[in-house]
Amino acid sequence: MLHDLFSPSVQHTLDLVGIFVFAISGALLAVRKNFDVFGMAVLAEVTALGGGLFRDLIIGAVPPAAFTDLGYFLMPLVATVLVFFLHPEVERTQTAVNVFDAAGLGLFAVTGTTKAYDYGLGLTSSAALGLATAVGGGVLRDVLANEVPSLLRWDRDLYAVPAIVGAAMVVLCIRFEVLNAYTSGTAVLTAFLLRLLAMRYHWRAPRAWNRRSTAREEPEKATAQ
Amino acid sequence: MLHDLFSPSVQHTLDLVGIFVFAISGALLAVRKNFDVFGMAVLAEVTALGGGLFRDLIIGAVPPAAFTDLGYFLMPLVATVLVFFLHPEVERTQTAVNVFDAAGLGLFAVTGTTKAYDYGLGLTSSAALGLATAVGGGVLRDVLANEVPSLLRWDRDLYAVPAIVGAAMVVLCIRFEVLNAYTSGTAVLTAFLLRLLAMRYHWRAPRAWNRRSTAREEPEKATAQ
Amino acid sequence: MLHDLFSPSVQHTLDLVGIFVFAISGALLAVRKNFDVFGMAVLAEVTALGGGLFRDLIIGAVPPAAFTDLGYFLMPLVATVLVFFLHPEVERTQTAVNVFDAAGLGLFAVTGTTKAYDYGLGLTSSAALGLATAVGGGVLRDVLANEVPSLLRWDRDLYAVPAIVGAAMVVLCIRFEVLNAYTSGTAVLTAFLLRLLAMRYHWRAPRAWNRRSTAREEPEKATAQ
Repeated sequence: MLHDLFSPSVQHTLDLVGIFVFAISGALLAVRKNFDVFGMAVLAEVTALGGGLFRDLIIGAVPPAAFTDLGYFLMPLVATVLVFFLHPEVERTQTAVNVFDAAGLGLFAVTGTTKAYDYGLGLTSSAALGLATAVGGGVLRDVLANEVPSLLRWDRDLYAVPAIVGAAMVVLCIRFEVLNAYTSGTAVLTAFLLRLLAMRYHWRAPRAWNRRSTAREEPEKATAQ
Repeated sequence: MLHDLFSPSVQHTLDLVGIFVFAISGALLAVRKNFDVFGMAVLAEVTALGGGLFRDLIIGAVPPAAFTDLGYFLMPLVATVLVFFLHPEVERTQTAVNVFDAAGLGLFAVTGTTKAYDYGLGLTSSAALGLATAVGGGVLRDVLANEVPSLLRWDRDLYAVPAIVGAAMVVLCIRFEVLNAYTSGTAVLTAFLLRLLAMRYHWRAPRAWNRRSTAREEPEKATAQ
Repeated sequence: MLHDLFSPSVQHTLDLVGIFVFAISGALLAVRKNFDVFGMAVLAEVTALGGGLFRDLIIGAVPPAAFTDLGYFLMPLVATVLVFFLHPEVERTQTAVNVFDAAGLGLFAVTGTTKAYDYGLGLTSSAALGLATAVGGGVLRDVLANEVPSLLRWDRDLYAVPAIVGAAMVVLCIRFEVLNAYTSGTAVLTAFLLRLLAMRYHWRAPRAWNRRSTAREEPEKATAQ
């Protein structure tokens, strides 16, 4: 199967790392929203496993990996405990969290795309589902926290683009039959570095091209709620 | 199969039209919420494909049509590009968009109901799932945009009822074994016209029968956010 | 099958009762949010059937019970009609609704866990899915109503813990092969009583352990919206 790109144990370890850092971001948002410890655990689980869960439902891989691999389920609880006791420290290391989150983004985009292709999806659909795997958990996290998903907001650094690039590289490698551990690793790294650069230089995506340049900025208040 | 009511190419063309107009409404909401171009694309995809995706997951038709038919995936991107460059013009044609949206509503209610029945659901469940197919994308759009779904708000013109009528007509046709391209077309048209009339005359559904007529209108502010 | 713990007719009656009281809570929230009668029906259906629907999608039991059992679908409509005409009376009986809701919580946690185990999930995953069955509908209800899910908020009485205890008892009974109608009933009762006690004594879960005791309470305003 294509998605055994890395040795199983390496793959599994990488997955757990990605799940862990996504869970940290969920638990931190829960602290900011003043949720209790169960709210933290729920948001950690949803952020970490939501993207993969969506992918597995779409491709018909039920029960999803999130419910068959105990490590996947327990990792977010570990993240919850950590944030519960150490959240000022964890927030202070926000940069470190962001770096790990970028790694998780690249990793999930690549493994999501390959798994979708393994299950018979076309190349474009596989890339789209790889993107959904990478960003889905974060969107669910924001929806549950009753916030506008940061993925959609114009005032956040590029998040989808690095994942799209990673997924597209995988799809091209499949198309030209050069997908292996090295090319996959390159795709993960590319997405990872793009995300780091986007954060470093505050790259942003354009909003709709507004023909009336005098358009006032009221809509912004609406999104700021 | 029942859902080949129209010739395949006619059916497919109608589906693409429905997807396109739903996508326009998603992309326009994204512009109003000040999302960037990726937020527009996400909202366009979700609005256009969300209802059918939900239906396909429920009936076990995986991977869902949204991920197997490339046209379904690309149409919302075309809508996004259009709205990106021309959104003041598109908004000015809001009436046209509403008319197409009404057509999409009727079409998706009818095809959703027939597909659900094809997959073995009962008559009532098929109609319910047809309704969900027609309105599901719009609800997902509003949830992602962090708005109260306009489907649920009392101060919007009837939207669910036309879809329910269309779905109910299909179910009655199945029951009395007279479902064909003509009766299906009639159901689509009926739902379409009902929705147009609801918009024209601002038909609204009643709110809970409030025994204390002195009830103050504060709750309204809450929904207005 | 394990989930035929009670005689089928008893089980089905209990399910309908649980669905009914969950639907009441959905319809009441719709009234408070000033939704129209269709909004009430949608919120009633989602609250009552959402948790079970999620469980059935995860374990691959499609079409889900919500779409194959007509009673499951009609019960929320009955609740909607009731709340529509009698909502001041129903709100006055809020305590009664809360008691029934607690019963539904216990019941759905136990039946959700057993059904998940029947479909081949591990013990921990089964308990997690039992919890999701019990609380999922309420979370969906709050997301659709554009509220912070009350499950996540620190200022609500314990809701997840009673369900977790009920699910854990089932899992332990399975592990030690003593699951039957009596032990299941005991698990339901324990969850039910715990929830009643939590409401009576306002048990709450802790928020993140804040090392800086001078932390100001601004975040609360944010969640209060």
